[in-house]
Amino acid sequence: MTNNPIVKGKLVCVALNDANQFEAMQAEFNEAPYKSAPTQPVLYFKTHNTWSTDGASVEWATNEGQAVDSMVVGASLAVVFGEECCRVSQDEALKYVGGYTLVHDFSLPELTYYRPDIKGKCLDGSAPIGSVVIPASDISDPQALTVTTQVNGETVHEMPVSQMVRSVAELISTISYIMTLQPGDVIAIGFPGQRAPVKQGDKVSSAIAGVIELNNVVGRA
Amino acid sequence: MTNNPIVKGKLVCVALNDANQFEAMQAEFNEAPYKSAPTQPVLYFKTHNTWSTDGASVEWATNEGQAVDSMVVGASLAVVFGEECCRVSQDEALKYVGGYTLVHDFSLPELTYYRPDIKGKCLDGSAPIGSVVIPASDISDPQALTVTTQVNGETVHEMPVSQMVRSVAELISTISYIMTLQPGDVIAIGFPGQRAPVKQGDKVSSAIAGVIELNNVVGRA
Repeated sequence: MTNNPIVKGKLVCVALNDANQFEAMQAEFNEAPYKSAPTQPVLYFKTHNTWSTDGASVEWATNEGQAVDSMVVGASLAVVFGEECCRVSQDEALKYVGGYTLVHDFSLPELTYYRPDIKGKCLDGSAPIGSVVIPASDISDPQALTVTTQVNGETVHEMPVSQMVRSVAELISTISYIMTLQPGDVIAIGFPGQRAPVKQGDKVSSAIAGVIELNNVVGRA
Repeated sequence: MTNNPIVKGKLVCVALNDANQFEAMQAEFNEAPYKSAPTQPVLYFKTHNTWSTDGASVEWATNEGQAVDSMVVGASLAVVFGEECCRVSQDEALKYVGGYTLVHDFSLPELTYYRPDIKGKCLDGSAPIGSVVIPASDISDPQALTVTTQVNGETVHEMPVSQMVRSVAELISTISYIMTLQPGDVIAIGFPGQRAPVKQGDKVSSAIAGVIELNNVVGRA
């Protein structure tokens, strides 16, 4: 297992924060069992065994000993907490951020937002996190950032943080009322709704222009 | 936040492992969106901010600044890993166990097994873990253990591990194919399906007769 020096306690990921995806899913939301769109952020965790690093090779998943057919990836701006953050307002939220980096979420294809997809999301080494954390003081407005992802040099995602359903400050505030965030905890604030398919041997590179880069290779089964 | 010395990396909890509950839910399982019972263990995580200790007071939850109306509790046998455990067979599974203890899962009432109930399950300090870990060598058969829980001295649960849908060895094997378990990781193998309601000020005590005890008090809002 790769040791990751950035995340200390938990890596909280926000699902369904791509406004285009959220809009496109309205019909699905209106079906059973909920019959309405979620009113709160939908969260999932990338557990300790998933934490990996910039430059790491990401293991190709297996299922009952057989290599799986497909995996996908998305990148997110990652908020790294510098101070304990409990029940804070949106106005105060950014004061608790120590810095920003990128996270890759490699997983099995996303088929459902109902039963929590632990099997698809908690693959060993599937959450590489940037090795450089840009101090919060260097980022005047995280909403102005854009995360781009290339697979083998071809751009597959270009996701402005401003196009997300919920802002960085709103998410920090809301999540801080659900659970205390501690120094070294990380929130991945949102991923492109259509994850990019990857194959064995692919190079996946994400960036926030001029500021943060994250490079990984998809391993072979 | 209470520092917990037992859990190092992740606390994985198994839902729906009470055979009586599983049986009683067949009609619900047959409704949308799945229209069948889950064929794999349903897992959830108690994150770092939930980890607490024997003797700790468990904070009463609030929602938008107001004390919630109700909370519930269940206890589970907790398997503490002593060695890294990845893709092991049922026959080999128990060899990776360092020891056993108890975990309390305090939460908001369980209303759904669909959208992952992060808000209900990840309350700060809601997962006290026993301070004593009984070495695996002292427990010849974890299936023979029974977990009992009392609230204010009255027995509310008596749950033999043998009455669970899946055995300790089966769960370790299945989960080890989903994610690597590392030393200091913990699996809570199953809780009574009908969680016990608790009020502010209640004393909650669980035990495996003569071996492990876990005592907590429900705090006041």
